[in-house]
Amino acid sequence: MTNQTLILIQCDDAVGLVARIANTISAHRLNIVTMREYVDEAANRFYVRIVCAGKVENNHQLKKDLTNALPEFATVHVSPPQQKRLAILVTKEHHCLGDIIVRHFFKTLDAEVCCVVGNYDHLRAFTERFDIPFHHVTHEEKSKADFEKEIAQTLAAYHPDYLVLAKFMRILSPEFVAHYPHRIINIHHSFLPAFIGANPYKQAHARGVKLIGATAHFVTNDLDEGPIIAQDIKPVNHSHTVKDMVRTGKEVEKSVLSKALSLVIEDRVIITGNKTVVFE
Amino acid sequence: MTNQTLILIQCDDAVGLVARIANTISAHRLNIVTMREYVDEAANRFYVRIVCAGKVENNHQLKKDLTNALPEFATVHVSPPQQKRLAILVTKEHHCLGDIIVRHFFKTLDAEVCCVVGNYDHLRAFTERFDIPFHHVTHEEKSKADFEKEIAQTLAAYHPDYLVLAKFMRILSPEFVAHYPHRIINIHHSFLPAFIGANPYKQAHARGVKLIGATAHFVTNDLDEGPIIAQDIKPVNHSHTVKDMVRTGKEVEKSVLSKALSLVIEDRVIITGNKTVVFE
Amino acid sequence: MTNQTLILIQCDDAVGLVARIANTISAHRLNIVTMREYVDEAANRFYVRIVCAGKVENNHQLKKDLTNALPEFATVHVSPPQQKRLAILVTKEHHCLGDIIVRHFFKTLDAEVCCVVGNYDHLRAFTERFDIPFHHVTHEEKSKADFEKEIAQTLAAYHPDYLVLAKFMRILSPEFVAHYPHRIINIHHSFLPAFIGANPYKQAHARGVKLIGATAHFVTNDLDEGPIIAQDIKPVNHSHTVKDMVRTGKEVEKSVLSKALSLVIEDRVIITGNKTVVFE
Amino acid sequence: MTNQTLILIQCDDAVGLVARIANTISAHRLNIVTMREYVDEAANRFYVRIVCAGKVENNHQLKKDLTNALPEFATVHVSPPQQKRLAILVTKEHHCLGDIIVRHFFKTLDAEVCCVVGNYDHLRAFTERFDIPFHHVTHEEKSKADFEKEIAQTLAAYHPDYLVLAKFMRILSPEFVAHYPHRIINIHHSFLPAFIGANPYKQAHARGVKLIGATAHFVTNDLDEGPIIAQDIKPVNHSHTVKDMVRTGKEVEKSVLSKALSLVIEDRVIITGNKTVVFE
Repeated sequence: MTNQTLILIQCDDAVGLVARIANTISAHRLNIVTMREYVDEAANRFYVRIVCAGKVENNHQLKKDLTNALPEFATVHVSPPQQKRLAILVTKEHHCLGDIIVRHFFKTLDAEVCCVVGNYDHLRAFTERFDIPFHHVTHEEKSKADFEKEIAQTLAAYHPDYLVLAKFMRILSPEFVAHYPHRIINIHHSFLPAFIGANPYKQAHARGVKLIGATAHFVTNDLDEGPIIAQDIKPVNHSHTVKDMVRTGKEVEKSVLSKALSLVIEDRVIITGNKTVVFE
Repeated sequence: MTNQTLILIQCDDAVGLVARIANTISAHRLNIVTMREYVDEAANRFYVRIVCAGKVENNHQLKKDLTNALPEFATVHVSPPQQKRLAILVTKEHHCLGDIIVRHFFKTLDAEVCCVVGNYDHLRAFTERFDIPFHHVTHEEKSKADFEKEIAQTLAAYHPDYLVLAKFMRILSPEFVAHYPHRIINIHHSFLPAFIGANPYKQAHARGVKLIGATAHFVTNDLDEGPIIAQDIKPVNHSHTVKDMVRTGKEVEKSVLSKALSLVIEDRVIITGNKTVVFE
Repeated sequence: MTNQTLILIQCDDAVGLVARIANTISAHRLNIVTMREYVDEAANRFYVRIVCAGKVENNHQLKKDLTNALPEFATVHVSPPQQKRLAILVTKEHHCLGDIIVRHFFKTLDAEVCCVVGNYDHLRAFTERFDIPFHHVTHEEKSKADFEKEIAQTLAAYHPDYLVLAKFMRILSPEFVAHYPHRIINIHHSFLPAFIGANPYKQAHARGVKLIGATAHFVTNDLDEGPIIAQDIKPVNHSHTVKDMVRTGKEVEKSVLSKALSLVIEDRVIITGNKTVVFE
Repeated sequence: MTNQTLILIQCDDAVGLVARIANTISAHRLNIVTMREYVDEAANRFYVRIVCAGKVENNHQLKKDLTNALPEFATVHVSPPQQKRLAILVTKEHHCLGDIIVRHFFKTLDAEVCCVVGNYDHLRAFTERFDIPFHHVTHEEKSKADFEKEIAQTLAAYHPDYLVLAKFMRILSPEFVAHYPHRIINIHHSFLPAFIGANPYKQAHARGVKLIGATAHFVTNDLDEGPIIAQDIKPVNHSHTVKDMVRTGKEVEKSVLSKALSLVIEDRVIITGNKTVVFE
């Protein structure tokens, strides 16, 4: 990311759009390195991800100029020069957190893990070994509103760009989610929309499935129904116990969340309605 | 299969079971080539697939001797020396039928396609090019009971071992299914149990999924809920239209059904309750 | 493909390139539906695939105008409105041919199989069932030059756009290949560049590999060394005999060649040096 | 593993073998939970992995009794009740070490990481955060023999069961390897046997491959040629730079080594000649 400018645009489709965008970028003396486009014909909607060589001098002016060059209802995102900041929310399971923090430690994440918040204290020892602040905010003996308020206050000090639910097992209220629009990323057990709800691996085992999946998605008001970023599966067979399926599921969850985070951190994801455009 | 004897057994687990089975097979002067076992500890149930070098002289006697050597509630299957016979049921889509018939033609299926029955006449030309009888049994202007009776009568002449629903788009009644217990194999659009019902690809597209799957399963009374034999997926992305997803879905369906048929034809599948034990 | 114009371009990279291309296309009153670009920074080379709604009125004029608008050393391809024509070369194995011809028959290939040429006569019966001309050109009792001359003469009558080596087991001379520059597609046993040469599955079995692969590539003078279009693998294990690995290999070959053909037929592949840019 | 006995056997095949083994195990009052067998017909060789419920009272007596019950040239392994001990050898790359140590920390590895030895000091800080001894043994300014002697002496204090080369970039001499027969596990960049040697990703990039692989194998005298335990691949495309391919390669290496370690730790791997039998 060091010496690049990254631009994400979506707007209604129109003739000559690419020329207008390219001219505007040219005028800012940036050279387009990669340009990935997609037009949703049915919706007449245009999406583009542009990587330019060189850091833009005036981030806001470029954003303004691009917006002026585009049709109405355009959204333009020009990535700021700083690294993105991630706050990680956890419960007791470590597999996703472990992967994220090791990447953070060795600087292969290309983002800053600013804090970890757990509704249990289980993962404090691991987190603190890496000098990352860990906050225990219990959900016990308080209302959901109070619990979420406490989390929000804890997070506020860190100014995170994204909240990562790395196996955070509490359901967040629409009010909480509304404070972080399109900024909460969740990893969901099982291959959505199958086996929504409790004990998904027990359900999967009882059903005799031959695949175990995981889905990383943005969180919106509908539980487990936000825009999907990445999905993957691993094969299982009759000899796998529920416990084996859980183990396999954790491996998939870890790698799918890791992939989704890379995509978001590298500005490869545009949200559109309840779906994503992903420029891999 | 040419000079082998294939045995599938399931029974309650007990100490010394393997020795008893091995001794019985030894007494029939067969040499065990491969033996694949699985014990479901929770259910205390034992499953084994045995390949022996040499054709058994007396199929029925071996089955009887094995049953006598085993605990109660055992089921023993000794494969007959003849090739299995498949009847294929279709509607209009050709992708699964095409694959099965080409394998049949080049003798890589290791089974006999004895006939194709369609509730439309669309696939007659293709089928008859391979000198396989095609029967058009329309579902129009008759009751479901009459439609199924006509299919059953048509099939009766061919004595099929298995009915393969190769994109047969009519739902079969429990009465019909009961005539072919554990002998009907279906390929289901989409990754069960997600997107059950109509227009699964439209649902999948609207949901913005990143994977398209297919499931081959035995048909039981519950629609789409019988024991799963094989599942697989292929990746899709935002640029895929519903039509592209249908095309991808057909590829997965074709290869999953093909794999499931191979597993069943080679006697690698034991049904147990609503699940399968598959010795791949 | 029915009402679209497809454009593939590669040229040296330059500022304002996308604008120039978009303007030229705009001037031909075509609307860009999809535009997929790639810039190879190291080589300073620009690649783009453009799908336009509407059939271009003057194919040659558009090509000329685009070339004029671009830097030196540009290659511009504007797809003709007709379907591509494929000539299939085979030896004895049927798995790839079977798949191609069934797709052709059901019109899901989006190309015309104009003829099949075999150096053995084994696949005549299958081919002729689909009313496709089959030519037996034996390599026996003649020089390689004469053999290839006879093939070339046979093919000439059909004006094929591409030659597909669907398990054609004769090595073609550089002279023959030179007549069809970037127009010969081969499917190679095994995952190149591993196990080049004779008996690849025997080698793979002896080595105890856990994966079997296949590679589809354009044929150039270096045997098995042309630009790779697609690759895939399937897992194997210790219980697989050489024969099983061959069977698995055929499945991979069939699906990899099928994928490569789709990519080429849909003008998704640009050749650059000994590599390909594939806009999937 | 807590209350199980694990047995691995290989010997020449013979009639009645399974019965003899089952009887011997029965006599030790162990109940067979899972039994996975494989017969290599060509080599007339029999392999079996047996999981028994209950800890064996006399490990050595059971091994002796089994050996007596079997034909000549049998090898019998009865797993000791203690956890296996792993010594990890590294150079500078952290991706494999990070994964192993996090699993160790959270006790999901089912083995003990007793020490890390690096020929550079780069990974000390990470390792010591987990209270695992790190030894820096430089290869500089000393002979290979002296370097290896120093490693051997360092390791001796820890009594490791296995040496894991987690991106250890020095080639070990046959003398060193001979001290740890079938006890050294290596992860190899690239999909063996392709691209053996220096700069494999540069080679792969130049060749325009569409897949990147990794291979975990036991180390024998021949460099990179020992018995393969696990292999996997990930897709890449034209837009991947050498650097991207390296990143993808690291992901594959990490997950393949992780899988291979699980297989070895759970006694699922039998070595036979230059191949492995893996009971997954």
